[in-house]
Parts: sequence; structure tokens; C-alpha cells
Amino acid sequence: MQKRYTVAIDLGGTNAKIALIKDEKEILSKEVFSTKDYQGREVLIKQITESVNSLLKDKKVKKTQVKALGIGVPGPVDFEKGVIYQLTNVKGWRDVPLKRILSGKLKLKVYIDNDVNLIALGEYKHGAGKGTKNMICLTLGTGVGGGLILDGRLYRGSNFTAGEVGHIPVNLQGPKCNCGGRGCLERYVGNYYLVERAKELIKGKPNSEILKLAGGRLSKISPEIIDRASKAGDKLALGIWQETGRYIGVALAGLVNVFNPERIVIGGGVALAGEVLFASIRKTVSLRAMEAPARKVKIVPAKLGDEAGLLGASILAAENS
Amino acid sequence: MQKRYTVAIDLGGTNAKIALIKDEKEILSKEVFSTKDYQGREVLIKQITESVNSLLKDKKVKKTQVKALGIGVPGPVDFEKGVIYQLTNVKGWRDVPLKRILSGKLKLKVYIDNDVNLIALGEYKHGAGKGTKNMICLTLGTGVGGGLILDGRLYRGSNFTAGEVGHIPVNLQGPKCNCGGRGCLERYVGNYYLVERAKELIKGKPNSEILKLAGGRLSKISPEIIDRASKAGDKLALGIWQETGRYIGVALAGLVNVFNPERIVIGGGVALAGEVLFASIRKTVSLRAMEAPARKVKIVPAKLGDEAGLLGASILAAENS
Repeated sequence: MQKRYTVAIDLGGTNAKIALIKDEKEILSKEVFSTKDYQGREVLIKQITESVNSLLKDKKVKKTQVKALGIGVPGPVDFEKGVIYQLTNVKGWRDVPLKRILSGKLKLKVYIDNDVNLIALGEYKHGAGKGTKNMICLTLGTGVGGGLILDGRLYRGSNFTAGEVGHIPVNLQGPKCNCGGRGCLERYVGNYYLVERAKELIKGKPNSEILKLAGGRLSKISPEIIDRASKAGDKLALGIWQETGRYIGVALAGLVNVFNPERIVIGGGVALAGEVLFASIRKTVSLRAMEAPARKVKIVPAKLGDEAGLLGASILAAENS
Repeated sequence: MQKRYTVAIDLGGTNAKIALIKDEKEILSKEVFSTKDYQGREVLIKQITESVNSLLKDKKVKKTQVKALGIGVPGPVDFEKGVIYQLTNVKGWRDVPLKRILSGKLKLKVYIDNDVNLIALGEYKHGAGKGTKNMICLTLGTGVGGGLILDGRLYRGSNFTAGEVGHIPVNLQGPKCNCGGRGCLERYVGNYYLVERAKELIKGKPNSEILKLAGGRLSKISPEIIDRASKAGDKLALGIWQETGRYIGVALAGLVNVFNPERIVIGGGVALAGEVLFASIRKTVSLRAMEAPARKVKIVPAKLGDEAGLLGASILAAENS
């Protein structure tokens, strides 16, 4: 019997998405449930097991027709052993051998990887990185994540932590970063720091569009609010995206010189700022990177949105099974 | 007949080394000649051809026993086509199809690559990178070069320019670099800038050890002089290496976070500064890189010295033939 199905899980700090996927591309059915309310991993594992079984049952797919199950998680993973070292924003997940646990319960092959690696894999096969051999994927959000496709394969590094693009120092004397370093990219363009920067810039400007859209409350300012203000033509908000683009561009100039990639794919909430941000990134890279690799690379928005992680998990499952 | 021989050429701006090598390791004979006096590439190509033929004749090795010829050159190369785009410090080498020219004249298979890529390959197979899967090689000299071994293979990038570690920005508002960027690593630790820094620091210090070793002449100061001063215990010279190590360490912290390599191998003239430089690099990386990849990586001096490029060229020839 030909196996054409995979089960894909995108396990996040807010919710988990579980999908049954055909040919690593077609999402046949999907279930989403909150992970916030769970008090521990036992309950979550039980919920995952039940969901997978019911998705298969609903679509009348037998386990013998399933190649494997792929899971993306927000944190470092030992890909070979299938052990989660820890999860960002989810408690109780230190050194959990999830591969062994789930394959035992579900009688399926299980593969686990970092979520941004799987977003990179998804965009590479079906999205904005299609047709390339060397691609860097960036996700801009609370943190700045990265995934590397090099010579056509996901590059994981020596203990599976490669791709931490957010922790490239762009300013050797810059402010302390959570990672222990200084002046890291994330320290300038992570959500929290973007918002802090906006607050600083609107000080003494009670008529600022950003403040208006936040209902006059500083605490309500978010990247989405800055985005809305910039789309309404607010100069200060536009300036924030331009500045953000310059920081990202400086880090990418280094990556362009070192990796000589064909494409850089940028996703995540902040990427929704769109052309004003991308124009600034592209301009900075073209000014600062070396000529030959700068001419070669295209810097583009991600295409698959929320589904990149699920499709990447499906590809991971299929490639390894 | 078993082919056990390769011919390796390390073509530099100062001289060319040509060697006959057995099993990609044993240098049977070697010839070195200056490339400075040559007025054009025709003469140099003729000299190479004659040298290769005479090396083979002397050792009674037939061309049918030679796997291939590998060449490393100081500049960007189209590895697949075997075309040299241009050479650093050697005139008359723009867009030269050296692979076609030499394979026609010598009736041998010919492979050409960037010299630092071949140093990386040499150190990876026989030197300080032996036994690893992911390794970064740095060469510290007039320029700062780099070669990447990722998942056990030389990574060349999309148009063969990958590895430009010297042009990672470490300071987004730093001084202009020759490459067009700003605040690049090379702009702080390339030979010229090291010497400028030394001159700046010894201003108003007529008794400085560096100045003494330079015979009182600022124009005689070189990285070698700084090295001799530091080895004689001169604090100012020691301080220059510590500062140099901090710049290198900041750039490497970014690479450690992005590549998660097992080993970083550092060679080139400046690396001879030894422990004072390496201690500063290691300390900076351990302070600034993320914990898991920082614990994994070992930062070590290159082992093969001048022979790394020849051995790398031999490996290149053998791997592709």
C-alpha cells in the first residue's frame, strides 16, 4: 500500500495545531487547541494522542497509510534522539523524550525539530524559497528566529542549535541581550524592544498616531499598532520600520557575505509591516554586503503564513520515514 | 592501474607552490617560484605547465597515475566552470577559464577553488579540524578569510563567494570598509588596521618596545613586530592582541550562534600571536555566544601552516576526480 499521508503538529506556547496532510502539501483536516490552560505535559500528550487518532478516524486513514508524524516545537531539540531540551514559554518540558513517548502511544514513527527549522523547510519546499538551493529563513516576533537551508538541506549544526540569527551581534558595545551577549539583532528588533523604541519616540507627542490607535494607553502599544499607524502614513511609525530594517539589514549583510544565499525569506508578525520594512532591509543589504553576493540574493516575504510550520513538519516526517 | 597521485598548486600573489602528492597527504616533491616578476598570465601558465611536467618526470609518475590537478587561488572562482573571476594582488586575471586552459595543456583533470576554501579542506581532513563535521576556518592576515565545512562538506554558496568572515559587521556604526560595508571584522583586525592601531597607541611613547623593535621607524611596524614585542612581555603589544581577540570573538559569537560548529580553526600570520590572542577570543566567545553552542565549540590554532593550501588542493582534486 502506498503511504501518502503524514501527521503534522505545530506545538506552540499558545496553541497546538494538528493536521492530517496528503503528499506533504494538502491539509486534509486540522485541529487547533489551546496549550495555555494545560498544567503539565501529561495532559497535553494525552490530548495530542486523542486528536491524532480522531483525525485519522474521521478521514478513514489507517496508520499503515501514514509515513510518519512530524512535530515542531518552540525550543531546542535533539533531533536525532527526539528529545526536547526545553520549551520557550511552556513549563514542564525539560529533557522530554517526546519521540519515544509519542511513538509508543501512537505506533507511528515520530520526528521532532525546532519550529523555525520547520518553517524554513516549509517555505523552502512550497513557499517563498521554492527552487533555491541556499536559503535563510527569518521569523520576526517576540524573538528573532532563523532556519538555514544549505546545499538543499536543512542545516542543524553540531548540537542542533544552528540558525540563531537573532543573536548575531550588530553592535559590539550594544546593550545586554537576554542570551548573555551584547547588541544582538533581537535586542533591537524583537517585539518588546520595538515597542519600547516607539514609546521613547512618542514621548512628549500626545497627538502621535500610534498613541491614538493605542487608545492613549502606552501599555496598549504593540507591533500591530505601529503597523496600523505606518499604514495610515504616520511618519514616526514609518521611521520605526525603516530603523528596524536597517538593523535587520546589517545582520543580513554579514549573513550574505558568509552564506552567499540565493534567497532570504522573512516571516513572522513584524514582517507584516510590508514594503516599508523590506525596502529598508534591501537597501541596507545592498549598501553593506559585498557586491557579488548582494546582487545574487533576493529578500522576500514568507508566503505560507501560519501553515509553514505544519507543512514543514509534514516534510520532515516524509523525508525521514 | 590504481591512481594514487594528485598535483596541487597554491597560486599566490607572491609565489606559486606546486607539489606532487601521494594519497592526498604525502608531499613527494615541491617547487616554489615567484609570481611577482611575471608580467602576465601567459608566462605564468607556461611556467606552471613546465613545472608540473618536470615534477612528474622526476618522480617517474605517469599522467595515467594522476587523479587530477587541484589549484587554489587568492580570489573568487566559479568552481563549476573553473573560471577565475579575478585575483587579489595579481594583475591580468579577470575571467580566466584556467580549468580549460590547463586541462588542455596538461591533459589532466583540473579543479580550481578559492585558496581559503582549500586551507579549510586541508585542516579539516589532516589538520586541526580532523574528526569534526562542522568547522569554520579563519585566516588572519592582510585580509581576514574564511572557509566553511558544513555537514562534512565544503560549503561554497550560491555563486561560490561564501565564507567572507572578514566582512561580518561587528559595529553597525563603525568605519567604512574596503568592501563597501561598515565596521567589518577585517576593518579592525586586518594587518593594516592592526599596525595603524599600534601606531596610534605608541604616540608620545618613545620608549615603547614596539618602536624599539621597529628600529625607531613607524613605517617598520608590522604584525610580526607587535608579536615580538608581546612575546617580550610588552603590555601595550599584549593589549593589542587582547583587543584584536575581542573583535574576532564578537564576530565568532555570531557565527557560533548561527552555525553551531564543533570547531573553529584559526590560521594566518596574526594567529602566530598565540595564546594571548586565543585566550581573548575564547573568553569573548564564551561571554557573548549562547550557552549550548558556546560549550560545544573548540577554538584552536591551525596545524598545517603553509602546507594546508597544497593538501587542500590535493583533496579537492581527489574528491572530484
